[in-house]
Amino acid sequence: MARYAYVNGRFVPHGEAMVHVEDRGFQFADGVYEVVTIIGGRLADEQGHLDRLARSLNELRIAWPVAPHVLKLLMRRLIARNHVTQGTIYLQITRGVAPRDFKFPKHSRSSLVMTTKRATAFATPEQLENGVKVISIPDIRWLRRDIKSVALLPQVLGKQQAVEAGAFEAWQLDPDGDVTEGCSSNAWIVTEDGTLVTRHADNLILNGVTRLSIIRLAREAGIPFEERAFSLEEAYRAREAFVSSASTFVMPVTRIDDRTVGNGKPGSLGERLRQAYLEYARTAGAS
Amino acid sequence: MARYAYVNGRFVPHGEAMVHVEDRGFQFADGVYEVVTIIGGRLADEQGHLDRLARSLNELRIAWPVAPHVLKLLMRRLIARNHVTQGTIYLQITRGVAPRDFKFPKHSRSSLVMTTKRATAFATPEQLENGVKVISIPDIRWLRRDIKSVALLPQVLGKQQAVEAGAFEAWQLDPDGDVTEGCSSNAWIVTEDGTLVTRHADNLILNGVTRLSIIRLAREAGIPFEERAFSLEEAYRAREAFVSSASTFVMPVTRIDDRTVGNGKPGSLGERLRQAYLEYARTAGAS
Repeated sequence: MARYAYVNGRFVPHGEAMVHVEDRGFQFADGVYEVVTIIGGRLADEQGHLDRLARSLNELRIAWPVAPHVLKLLMRRLIARNHVTQGTIYLQITRGVAPRDFKFPKHSRSSLVMTTKRATAFATPEQLENGVKVISIPDIRWLRRDIKSVALLPQVLGKQQAVEAGAFEAWQLDPDGDVTEGCSSNAWIVTEDGTLVTRHADNLILNGVTRLSIIRLAREAGIPFEERAFSLEEAYRAREAFVSSASTFVMPVTRIDDRTVGNGKPGSLGERLRQAYLEYARTAGAS
Repeated sequence: MARYAYVNGRFVPHGEAMVHVEDRGFQFADGVYEVVTIIGGRLADEQGHLDRLARSLNELRIAWPVAPHVLKLLMRRLIARNHVTQGTIYLQITRGVAPRDFKFPKHSRSSLVMTTKRATAFATPEQLENGVKVISIPDIRWLRRDIKSVALLPQVLGKQQAVEAGAFEAWQLDPDGDVTEGCSSNAWIVTEDGTLVTRHADNLILNGVTRLSIIRLAREAGIPFEERAFSLEEAYRAREAFVSSASTFVMPVTRIDDRTVGNGKPGSLGERLRQAYLEYARTAGAS
């Protein structure tokens, strides 16, 4: 674990990184977060993450704890202090500390907490070679999944269910049997005829920053692409499948429930997009 | 604000009541809570709250931080230390501190946090004389509302919407237009023919401890009672309406959206149940 955390204006040893019990993040899940990947010393898709953070804060009417350009500076200071050249930085903003009451407090100051984690790799060689398994579960979450809030309990339960089924992720299904997304990743398939598909972004999924970059990279490469809902049945029949997230980039999926995807090996289109994303993150990321 | 809080084994001054930023309550809303009212020095419906706490913990597979009988003792110690004879005690249990990862950590120790609040009254004379207003909003919450988790962001937004509409509470509507419950209270009506109605308890509402006591008291008093869904339209036409919660007991509702309930004054059945509940809490509560 990294040595320092940033908490409300101070860089403190990780073990001493504390917030008050009446922080609304602790009592009400009244806060938002982002995870930004650091690769080759660069912040992958940093602006995309800050744009989404701005949107989440705006939707919940939580004030910026510091101006965005100061936040960028503080992120860099923490990363430097912890000597992270590969890993992730986690940042969480809440509505701050106030006597417990559901409604927004009149006078609270937004809390800002940041931690970093070093990573030797973002996927194991085994995962990249064989792909991972996902299971399908009902999507029981609230209806504002477009906000990246810390009210993550349903996702916690879904991930735990996945782990207990020997899977990497759980794909959540809306009442019609369509896949919304994973618990901490977006879901993708390549159809039998070679079209790349991921669900359109509305209030029912989180619009992944990595998802947006992959869409752009796919379009630039002239890959046939459709942004639309797909059913679990269509996913079972897919040629390829993968998940995307800030910390896994593109992770091949070779099993969905008890079905084998395609020939059971990671697909070539997913691999191509993974390489394209890595290349983009390493070169275009902000240092 | 009361002088002491209890945090993970220690009684600490309220201002120093801190949890680690990697407490899963802060990062994942991975925790549950209860609010118990103290009235005349007694804990109203204490066993009901502890039973529900046990159920919430069990559903989420969070371990008790201390045995239930020890928790009861600690609650009393905090109440005594803060000289609370009327008010509330808030207790929150989370899955504890662990490096951030969605799935359940292998080795974490549940966190226990408690705070108290003194109250001179549980309702203002004006509220009791004129009743309060509620508004109706769509119920956008997750589908395990039977678990009293701290993933309260939708309720925060709903309450804020109520406050901005000059209302006390927001009644949430399922897609069929039926009232599920308030953001921090259960919803009740008395129909045109004098039947007391509140929604049946399943995964779509929190089974209020005060709700259960009111049902028992109503049955004992021979009041006609139906436990079933009711529509917003039916509520508009009701003779009386009220909300129930641990800290408001029975609070009369005299306006729903822009409609006046009954004759616009708090109803007699609600008042009778309020008195019955107060009498029960004052005499049967554990000291």
